[in-house]
Amino acid sequence: MKSTNDLQRVAVIGGGVIGGGWVARCLLNGITVNLYDPDPNAARKIDAIMVNARMAFAKLVDGLVPPEGKLRFADSIASAVDGADLIIEAVPERLDIKQSVYHDIEAAAADTLIASSTSGILPSDLQAHMAQPDRLLVAHPFNPVYLLPLVELVGGAKTSQSAIDKASQMFRQLGMHPLHVRTEIPAFIADRFLEAVWREALWLVNDGVATTAEIDDAIRYGFGLRWAQMGLFETYRVAGGEAGMAHFIAQFGPCLQWPWTKLTDVPDLTDELVNRIADQSDAQSAAYSIRQLEQIRDDNLVAILRQLEQRNWGAGQTVRSWQEQLNASAIRSMPDPTPLIRSYETTVPQDWVDYNGHMTEHRYLECFSHATDEIMRQAGVDDAYIAAGGSFFTVETHICHIDEVMAGAPIYVDTQILSVAGKKMRLFHRLYDKSGTLLATGEHMLLHVDMTQRRASQPTALVAAKLAKMAAGHATLAMPDAAGRAVGMTR
Amino acid sequence: MKSTNDLQRVAVIGGGVIGGGWVARCLLNGITVNLYDPDPNAARKIDAIMVNARMAFAKLVDGLVPPEGKLRFADSIASAVDGADLIIEAVPERLDIKQSVYHDIEAAAADTLIASSTSGILPSDLQAHMAQPDRLLVAHPFNPVYLLPLVELVGGAKTSQSAIDKASQMFRQLGMHPLHVRTEIPAFIADRFLEAVWREALWLVNDGVATTAEIDDAIRYGFGLRWAQMGLFETYRVAGGEAGMAHFIAQFGPCLQWPWTKLTDVPDLTDELVNRIADQSDAQSAAYSIRQLEQIRDDNLVAILRQLEQRNWGAGQTVRSWQEQLNASAIRSMPDPTPLIRSYETTVPQDWVDYNGHMTEHRYLECFSHATDEIMRQAGVDDAYIAAGGSFFTVETHICHIDEVMAGAPIYVDTQILSVAGKKMRLFHRLYDKSGTLLATGEHMLLHVDMTQRRASQPTALVAAKLAKMAAGHATLAMPDAAGRAVGMTR
Repeated sequence: MKSTNDLQRVAVIGGGVIGGGWVARCLLNGITVNLYDPDPNAARKIDAIMVNARMAFAKLVDGLVPPEGKLRFADSIASAVDGADLIIEAVPERLDIKQSVYHDIEAAAADTLIASSTSGILPSDLQAHMAQPDRLLVAHPFNPVYLLPLVELVGGAKTSQSAIDKASQMFRQLGMHPLHVRTEIPAFIADRFLEAVWREALWLVNDGVATTAEIDDAIRYGFGLRWAQMGLFETYRVAGGEAGMAHFIAQFGPCLQWPWTKLTDVPDLTDELVNRIADQSDAQSAAYSIRQLEQIRDDNLVAILRQLEQRNWGAGQTVRSWQEQLNASAIRSMPDPTPLIRSYETTVPQDWVDYNGHMTEHRYLECFSHATDEIMRQAGVDDAYIAAGGSFFTVETHICHIDEVMAGAPIYVDTQILSVAGKKMRLFHRLYDKSGTLLATGEHMLLHVDMTQRRASQPTALVAAKLAKMAAGHATLAMPDAAGRAVGMTR
Repeated sequence: MKSTNDLQRVAVIGGGVIGGGWVARCLLNGITVNLYDPDPNAARKIDAIMVNARMAFAKLVDGLVPPEGKLRFADSIASAVDGADLIIEAVPERLDIKQSVYHDIEAAAADTLIASSTSGILPSDLQAHMAQPDRLLVAHPFNPVYLLPLVELVGGAKTSQSAIDKASQMFRQLGMHPLHVRTEIPAFIADRFLEAVWREALWLVNDGVATTAEIDDAIRYGFGLRWAQMGLFETYRVAGGEAGMAHFIAQFGPCLQWPWTKLTDVPDLTDELVNRIADQSDAQSAAYSIRQLEQIRDDNLVAILRQLEQRNWGAGQTVRSWQEQLNASAIRSMPDPTPLIRSYETTVPQDWVDYNGHMTEHRYLECFSHATDEIMRQAGVDDAYIAAGGSFFTVETHICHIDEVMAGAPIYVDTQILSVAGKKMRLFHRLYDKSGTLLATGEHMLLHVDMTQRRASQPTALVAAKLAKMAAGHATLAMPDAAGRAVGMTR
């Protein structure tokens, strides 16, 4: 995917959970943010969100990322929107407040796209009193905004098609999956389902059928797992089997006439019901603070998204595209390479840590493996080359584990090419933490293989030439002490 | 968790998608199954499910598992239930058919627990004409039954508490999360939500607001990801922040009065609507066969469950307990150890494979790392020992990559203890595939450390003694050729 770099500065109006989530997503994408939030606690709120967002982002994304964007606290709406490529409104869900914000925006900035984060107010109502209503649309995100890819785009009667198109492109640049809701209806699409489930859940608690914990377990031990990767229809299509979707509907259609939901009514939110829910929720979750729950949630979402990314499926496809954009953006702004090749950078994810409290041993080799991949990539052994049947296989590895490293620590690998000759390539990786402490070294012999024959073969002339050039650049470097070591050899 | 081994033989009546899923889950747990299904295609249907289930199970579970249970096709209900510890009914959703099955069961087997898989028929209706109604309950699973842990247990008016208790224990032995639905209502808990969402989805398609693909994306790019790991209430508790659950409800309560769902009515399932859904579903998913979609779904679910298992959260907790039970069960039935220590066994998971189509290099070290853990465990370096501050850290590793191995292949590690002296332990692992082909060797130097000081220290006397005994058992074994090698040394 080509990165257009259209989006360089974003104005965010309102710094609550949703506005703060937008701020985090933009900053992590290297975009400058002007935030307007009259709350004197705005900076503290954003700091708290950024702590979570930075951790989650580091665990979600591999490789190089652009430097974090700058955050400026503006003292007025006019100052915030000045020079912005996109204005995101995330103020409370009251039509009058939102319309007043748009009035202030229009007094200060012509033409700039305005995206409202409303969960359900119709864009036609939002834009009713605007001078340039064609530039307003709804861009409804999902909490946590810095992790979940979905954003529903909804235009009002006066929204232009070009506003929808431009917004789609911008939110893709932010690593999101824009879903154009083509018909303007209250609550759009996703929140209609959330509302239906919420109403049914309130009834179940109200009638004493189930507690909040039992309801949550009924979701997350069963259909919630399904919905993280396929939606309603595709899940049922599979369950229906070869007979097809029409057969499935015919089979389950009669249930529609049975009393299987109580959605014809809404329970009264009496103090008694509200307190019951709050008490049950305490019993269920109060063992963790909200901050702990946020981090558990984020770690779980990251783990799920990374797995889907590896499988290039659903929300993982969005993450993969995002990562490619981030890598490309970071590489564009890189200085000239140092003699050693910076072949890998990451932050130690929580799930790389073992019972000893430090990064577990095989993750050291995973770092070296990623570093080797990067050397191969730089030599032209890329996806297309591999798809055509050529690759390098590691045949021998020697690792010195020198120091331990804990979760959350930034680490990187510098690589020295020891030798390149015919089918063979010998690499020496050094893994460091950010302070420059050497954590481990890895020495690796690789053989070029023809994967159609599954046996050793010469690389293509182009790859051989690139490798020779890279190796020549390292020819004057000293041989590392640890190169050529065997296990247990006296140092 | 203590395995009770109560469940040794299960009768399953009905071998469709759900019944077949039960058969698969039981067989994979090492339990004998008697299946009664009059369909002449029953064996073919079960074979197809077992192909998927075996693949998913191998990827989900690490370490040793008991041998697969035996499947017997019974020619009558009476023959199927003979000698069973549990009878699972999974016939079509018609009360008269189910009651007739119970009649036949009661003529052949007294006392045995009967669990109906119905999605929504009330157990009081199911048991209305039974001679021993106290032994009937609903055990409602979720497709795919061999992967999703949730099973809703619902008793009728005449179901005994001991039946519920016994069923809970049995389904836990099957690796599931039994959720006791304490109030008997139609559709129980989970299907009430599914029904609510289904009705709303039918409206959205009926009214042309969204296609099936758009609806699925609205789910799986957003709230579906949340619900795989936290349910509705815990998610909202976190979103509500420090102000608490009551505040959250007060804030969003007014939406209940807004027209945010259309659930007061049910759309007519006209041919036109059914065909529209079927056509949209084809457009969305027909690029994959149902078989492919099943495998994609299973791989995604396995990946998500494995991540949650690593984090010991939600459905992952169930998987972790299950795995411990399976390992314990397999170990109980193991023969005496060979001179070399069988320190690790697994089947190469799909997600261990890289772009070269074979197990990626760092997973070799992961195998060796698990093998080292097992040696440590056998020497008494267990959770309690580590919690008390002692452990072994790997300081040096040498790997020879000898052969490649593909996803789904059973592999194992045999370990030779080269030497044990004071703080130092030198191990030599050999990784084989099932046919005995040597895939890699790993030589490792480990140092015992005091983790409170993070520096080398002597192991406890007990651990030292155990290690000495283990090393003495290997003293007569030949030193492996690859021991002491350095990278690139001439062989």
